[in-house]
Amino acid sequence: MARFLTLQSVDSILEHVGKFLPLPGESLPPEEALNRVLAAPFHAPENLPHFSRSSMDGFAVRAKDVFGASEGAPALLDCVGECPMGRKTELVLAPGQTARIWTGGMLPEGADAVVMLEYSRRTGSGRMEQVELTRPVAPLDNVIAAGEDAEKGALLLEAGRLLRPQELGMLAAFGVRVVEVRRRARVAVISSGDEIVPDDIAPAPGQVRDINARTLTALVRAGGGEARFSGIAEDSGAALLRMLKDAMSWADVVLLSGGSSAGQRDCTLDALSALPGMDILAHGVAISPGKPLILARKGAQSFWGLPGHAGSALVCAEVFIRPLLRRLAGQGEPAPWRDVVRAVLGRPIASAQGRRDYIRVRIQPPEESGGLPSAMPIAGKSGLITTLTEADALVVCPEDMEGLAAGEIVTARFLL
Amino acid sequence: MARFLTLQSVDSILEHVGKFLPLPGESLPPEEALNRVLAAPFHAPENLPHFSRSSMDGFAVRAKDVFGASEGAPALLDCVGECPMGRKTELVLAPGQTARIWTGGMLPEGADAVVMLEYSRRTGSGRMEQVELTRPVAPLDNVIAAGEDAEKGALLLEAGRLLRPQELGMLAAFGVRVVEVRRRARVAVISSGDEIVPDDIAPAPGQVRDINARTLTALVRAGGGEARFSGIAEDSGAALLRMLKDAMSWADVVLLSGGSSAGQRDCTLDALSALPGMDILAHGVAISPGKPLILARKGAQSFWGLPGHAGSALVCAEVFIRPLLRRLAGQGEPAPWRDVVRAVLGRPIASAQGRRDYIRVRIQPPEESGGLPSAMPIAGKSGLITTLTEADALVVCPEDMEGLAAGEIVTARFLL
Repeated sequence: MARFLTLQSVDSILEHVGKFLPLPGESLPPEEALNRVLAAPFHAPENLPHFSRSSMDGFAVRAKDVFGASEGAPALLDCVGECPMGRKTELVLAPGQTARIWTGGMLPEGADAVVMLEYSRRTGSGRMEQVELTRPVAPLDNVIAAGEDAEKGALLLEAGRLLRPQELGMLAAFGVRVVEVRRRARVAVISSGDEIVPDDIAPAPGQVRDINARTLTALVRAGGGEARFSGIAEDSGAALLRMLKDAMSWADVVLLSGGSSAGQRDCTLDALSALPGMDILAHGVAISPGKPLILARKGAQSFWGLPGHAGSALVCAEVFIRPLLRRLAGQGEPAPWRDVVRAVLGRPIASAQGRRDYIRVRIQPPEESGGLPSAMPIAGKSGLITTLTEADALVVCPEDMEGLAAGEIVTARFLL
Repeated sequence: MARFLTLQSVDSILEHVGKFLPLPGESLPPEEALNRVLAAPFHAPENLPHFSRSSMDGFAVRAKDVFGASEGAPALLDCVGECPMGRKTELVLAPGQTARIWTGGMLPEGADAVVMLEYSRRTGSGRMEQVELTRPVAPLDNVIAAGEDAEKGALLLEAGRLLRPQELGMLAAFGVRVVEVRRRARVAVISSGDEIVPDDIAPAPGQVRDINARTLTALVRAGGGEARFSGIAEDSGAALLRMLKDAMSWADVVLLSGGSSAGQRDCTLDALSALPGMDILAHGVAISPGKPLILARKGAQSFWGLPGHAGSALVCAEVFIRPLLRRLAGQGEPAPWRDVVRAVLGRPIASAQGRRDYIRVRIQPPEESGGLPSAMPIAGKSGLITTLTEADALVVCPEDMEGLAAGEIVTARFLL
């Protein structure tokens, strides 16, 4: 009577994810490229800075002219003028000469270091201004040398790099006007279930509003993808097939949530099988929540059948769709120390051998100062949306464990 | 000759930040509210779900009718029909009766639990279908009861809550069409310095392209604010004053970077002082990088004079402007375990007593498996943009330390 699933492991699904290739690149002005991913390595097109600059207010000098200078035995130099900001100075320092300079100013020819203003005393005497400098400097002290920030040709950013404010700043420093980034993954979201109504309709008894349309599109956007909601699939194979075809004319990824009943799953599988070239890679995963998950692939496109329960659907999307979005963007896996916290499990968790459980937890302050925070499992059935709004993070109970004891130290991964 | 600053502590600047009030709220459709901050608490307007639903495919029962059922001694019940999806069933279960039900279906009157399909056997005999159920259930087993996800009137989300996908899903579950969130902080970004040219102009000798316009606007956007670049300020008090007045007609926050030389700082202070009601709260902070920082306040508006060096400006923005954006959005301080990693310092760091240093580090895998990752300070002068593109995180060397030794365990905070 019941149709039993052939369960694949979570890792085997993630292996399927790893086989997708990064999406093609697209060209963007850098001001639109925040949080996008570089599609090609970036090499310095020129020296940065392209001239030697002072990094302090002070006096440009030849370092050897202030060798051994001190408060008691200052170096006495002739001040031949002031370096202008924003242009090359005409000044050339001969031995024994100095020039005033400001932060960011271009060093005059002959100078190789700057003595800070704080270590200077003017001694106006005669027609030539003189300055006493009371500290020695080494060559390049208080100077940013030409090419010190980046040398022409150096590899500055690898492909796959997430563009943070500082990477955008670097591109600005070189006057880059167009940057090649990975196209955003296009993700179509379809809801299904005869009991589901759009969230702007008052549900009759027996009906519930669509939650997954909202959570899944938001998760995709938060993960750097472009999301479109296709609508709620009618409960007929022909209607679902039409909707899938339509979604796959645009999308790299289709997320269908709902239809968790055995009959609806079969209907989904039938629709998928009717699409030429569609490969059903998985039907059933040893995961909780999310056991009836379906994964199919057609060329570079993937199709995911997610659970209908809002909480379960979102956990599956965290576990599988976020890595898929990183993969399609050409990003590597996140460093294992990002977005996690080591915490003490606050309550025991029961699981089952052979299954990987993702447990929603709230992270709470340590009981003793200096201790690890605690990870408190959220009570409530896994389908409830409140279990996710109350959760900060997920804790994994691995396949080879039947549970986790209270007091165990776990690594919790933050939800967004 | 040198003008010495009266240095305030980093904490005293953060105290000033803490005195700003959250910005007013604005109404948005929830689909536009991802990563916005709730301006008012949200209470459940109705029970969720608003009827009792099955969370499994199976048979709706009165739990007492399957008491003690087992594989060897199944409970034999009369199956009176199937509960339709998406509407209230006409069926009413009398003692000894059951009805087929699907995941998400509304429970029939009389039923209080569901036995999973896996634990059922049909025994067609005579005109009435009969079912053997081989497992007992407790009331509410495999059922999501009316109000179990949220009870009408319950406080579900507090003001100040960041709206993640799951919070948006919760709003969808209740059919919320408008959500009150904090207005985004409006941040005007001004660059200054006679050597600075826009990044689309090829710099002449002595000139450099504007980096801070790009980094600071991006940081503000990444932190949830709305950023506008006002332009590069000319080096005249009158021009700067005009630009400030213009920015403050729109902005909640003005960030002026550059003008790190003593003369330019004075010019900035003069312009600020010329604005009626402007309170100069700080001029000089015991921080590295960023000592010459200026903070001024006029009512709910704040003005920040940041260093000109790209690396220094961005570190100061991380330290002060990101907390300010959280504050203006009505968010509390982040949990101390978010966006940090405990790591082993890879090289010694020299600092100075009385000053708080923010050291850029790269986080690297542990030397031994199971150990802490290492935090490797990035070599290079603090103004260099490459020191930030190479950095993953910042490590603090506090005021009461003269440095940190290699091998010390530190907490590194991730940059974005």
